[in-house]
Amino acid sequence: MTPLILLDSQEHSLRVEKIRSALATTGAKAILITDNANIFYITGRVFAGQIYIPAEGPVIFFVRRPVGLSGDGVVYIRKPEQIAETIGLNIPETIALELDITAYSTVQRMAAIFPGSQIVNGSTALRIARSVKTPAEINLMKISGGKQERVYRSIPKLYRTGMTDLELQVEIEKASRLEGCLGQFRISGDSMELYMANILVGDNADNPTPYDFAMGGAGLDPSLPVGCNGTVIRPGYSVMVDANGNYTGYMTDMTRTFAATAIDSLAMKAHQVSIDICHAIAEAGTPGTPAKELYHLAETMAKDAGLEHYFMGHAQKAGFVGHGVGIEINEMPVLAPRSKDTLQIGNAIAVEPKFVIPGVGAVGIENTYIVTQSGMERITCAPEEIISLEK
Amino acid sequence: MTPLILLDSQEHSLRVEKIRSALATTGAKAILITDNANIFYITGRVFAGQIYIPAEGPVIFFVRRPVGLSGDGVVYIRKPEQIAETIGLNIPETIALELDITAYSTVQRMAAIFPGSQIVNGSTALRIARSVKTPAEINLMKISGGKQERVYRSIPKLYRTGMTDLELQVEIEKASRLEGCLGQFRISGDSMELYMANILVGDNADNPTPYDFAMGGAGLDPSLPVGCNGTVIRPGYSVMVDANGNYTGYMTDMTRTFAATAIDSLAMKAHQVSIDICHAIAEAGTPGTPAKELYHLAETMAKDAGLEHYFMGHAQKAGFVGHGVGIEINEMPVLAPRSKDTLQIGNAIAVEPKFVIPGVGAVGIENTYIVTQSGMERITCAPEEIISLEK
Repeated sequence: MTPLILLDSQEHSLRVEKIRSALATTGAKAILITDNANIFYITGRVFAGQIYIPAEGPVIFFVRRPVGLSGDGVVYIRKPEQIAETIGLNIPETIALELDITAYSTVQRMAAIFPGSQIVNGSTALRIARSVKTPAEINLMKISGGKQERVYRSIPKLYRTGMTDLELQVEIEKASRLEGCLGQFRISGDSMELYMANILVGDNADNPTPYDFAMGGAGLDPSLPVGCNGTVIRPGYSVMVDANGNYTGYMTDMTRTFAATAIDSLAMKAHQVSIDICHAIAEAGTPGTPAKELYHLAETMAKDAGLEHYFMGHAQKAGFVGHGVGIEINEMPVLAPRSKDTLQIGNAIAVEPKFVIPGVGAVGIENTYIVTQSGMERITCAPEEIISLEK
Repeated sequence: MTPLILLDSQEHSLRVEKIRSALATTGAKAILITDNANIFYITGRVFAGQIYIPAEGPVIFFVRRPVGLSGDGVVYIRKPEQIAETIGLNIPETIALELDITAYSTVQRMAAIFPGSQIVNGSTALRIARSVKTPAEINLMKISGGKQERVYRSIPKLYRTGMTDLELQVEIEKASRLEGCLGQFRISGDSMELYMANILVGDNADNPTPYDFAMGGAGLDPSLPVGCNGTVIRPGYSVMVDANGNYTGYMTDMTRTFAATAIDSLAMKAHQVSIDICHAIAEAGTPGTPAKELYHLAETMAKDAGLEHYFMGHAQKAGFVGHGVGIEINEMPVLAPRSKDTLQIGNAIAVEPKFVIPGVGAVGIENTYIVTQSGMERITCAPEEIISLEK
C-alpha cells in the first residue's frame, strides 16, 4: 500500500485550511472536490474520486482508482453514490461543488448524494485558495523556471537555417522533454487547447485564434487553430517562443523572441517597450495593488510609445496582459481592464505584454513573477533581449 | 473574410441531418452546441462560440472568436446572452444542451437565454451522430492510420541499446510530429489526461493509474500518473507503444509491442492471443452485433488460454476491450460487459485486448477498425507480431 497523501502533512493541512478559509465566505459547510487539478493541489497526486472537506472535522478521500492507496480518511468506492453511506447523518445543509468546471450531469449526480442540501459554487473559493502559493509551491515553480530557462538558452543551438516554425518547435519539444518537461499543459475549463508550445514566425502571428490566449497563429490544421503553421524562418521575421514550462506539476510561463537576422526598428522598439512594461509591472506589483491598475500601466506605456495598434495583437487583440499560473495556466489573478483581483503575497503571475508588427511578427517577452512584500520577483530568468539564432 | 464552414457543403448538411435525426429522440426542438469537438464536427473548424441547430430551419453560428469568419448564418456576438436577440420569438419549448460535458455554470448561463424552455441532455444524441462516421471522416481516419503506421515502422530505427522508456518516447514524439501528428489528444470530459503516448516497459505496466485507460504506468510525476516512468529497456522486458494517432483532427488508435530480445514464453503466448482476439472480433463485428458480445468474445478467449489473470491488466484491470474513436479517443461504441451499444456500419472502433505479464510487462496489440457490411476493416496496418528493436 502506498500513502494517498504525497505532500508533507503540514503542507497538506495548510492547503486544506486555505480552502476552508476561502470556503467560509460561500456559506457552505463542506465542499466535495472532483477536479484533477484540485485533487493534486490537496494531496500531491491525481486520483479518480472525490475529496470531501467539511468546515470542521476530518477530510475524507473517496477513491475509485488507482488500487492500493492508504491513509487516514481513505475510503474506496465504485461509484459516487456510495459517498452517502460514509457521510451518513452528517449531511451538510449547504455544500459547495466545483460548478464552474464540473459537467452539469456530474453535478446533478453529486447533488443527488446530498438530498435536501443547498448546492453552492465552490469554484471561486478554490481559485482564491490556489492563487496564493505556499513556499513549497513556489519552490516547485522555481524548479520549473530553472529548467525552462535552460531549454530557452539552448534554442539558438537547435536552430538551423531554413527551418520552419514547426521544425524548430519539434526540436524545442524534444529539448523540453529531455530536460524533464511533463508535456501536459493544464488549462482550467474545456475551451482552450494548445499543444506544448506556441511558436510564431512572421505574419502567422497576426492570424487570429478562437482561443483566449494572448497570441494566435493559424495552426497546422483547423482542428487546432493556434500556433505554428509551417512558416519558414526568413530574414526579417521574428520568432516568438512561448513553450510549456510544466516540469513539476507547477508551470512557469515564459516567452522569448528570437530572430535569424536584424529585424525592423519598429519591432525592435516594441520589444524594448515590452521589456520596460514587464519591469514597470514588476516594480509596481506590490501586495494590495489592483490587478487592473497593472493592465492600465501596460496599456498606457504601449500608447505612450505610439504602439497601441500592435499591443496584445493586431488583427485581433487579447483582453489581458497577465494571468495567474501554477497547476494550471489560467489561474487568478488576471491583469485585465475589469479585473476585480488584488495582488497578494504569494501570487504567481505571468506578465506578457506582446506586440504584433505586420511584416515582422510577434515581439515582446513574458515572465513569471512571484508577488513579494517589495514587488514581484522574476522566476523565469533567460535573457530578455531579442536573441540571435544565427551563430 | 474566410468562410466559417470548411467542410464541403453536402458533407456539412449530412452531419447536421445526422444530429437532427439523433436529436429527434430527445424531444428537443433545437440544440445549442458549445463544445470544441462538436463544433469541429459540424463545421470542420474550431471557433469560440455556439452553434444553434433547430429541428427545422437554418443553422446559426454564433461566433465570439476569431475575427473574420463569414457565411450564411454567421452572427458575431460578444457574450452568449446576445443569442436571445437573434433567436427572437422562435424560442423552442425544449432545447438540448451538451449536459454531459458542459460545466454546470455554463449550462445555467445558456439556459437563462431560453427562459421558459425545458432543457434536455443532447450529449448522447451528439455521441450517437458522431459514432457513425461518414465516408469523408473515414478517409481522414485512414490518412491518420497510414501516417501512424509509418511512425510505428520506424520505431526500431529510433531505438538505441540502454535507452529508457522516456528516451524512446521522446524519439517517437519527434518522429510523429515530423510525420504531421498534431499532438493534441482529444478526450471527452475532464477526468482523463495523457501526454502524446503511453509507452510501457517491464513492470511499470503493472503500476495502476487513476485514469480509465486500458493500461496504466506510474508516469514521471504524481501530477500525471500514467505511462513511462524512466524504466531502462532491458533484455526480457516488453515495450508497449500506444502513441497519438491524430494527424487530421481524426485519430486512429494503434498499439504495438516491441522487445530488445526474446521475452518469456507466457508473454509470447499472450501476445498471440491478443492478435487472435483482434482477428476474431474483426470477423464477428458485423453490423447489428451487440458491443458487449465482442467484449465477452475477448474475455472468453483470454480465459480459454488460461490468461484471465493478466487480461486487461494485472494489479488493476480495465473494464473494456475496445472503444469508439474519431475526433476524440473515447467515442461510442464501447466494447464492455454492460455496453448497450450495437455495431453499425461506419463505426470506428479501437480494439485493444492487452495483457500484463509480471516480470515482462505489457503485451498485445491495438487496431482501429471501421465497421463494414462484412465485418471490421483494419485501418492501422503495421505488423502485429512482437517487433525486435535490436537490428
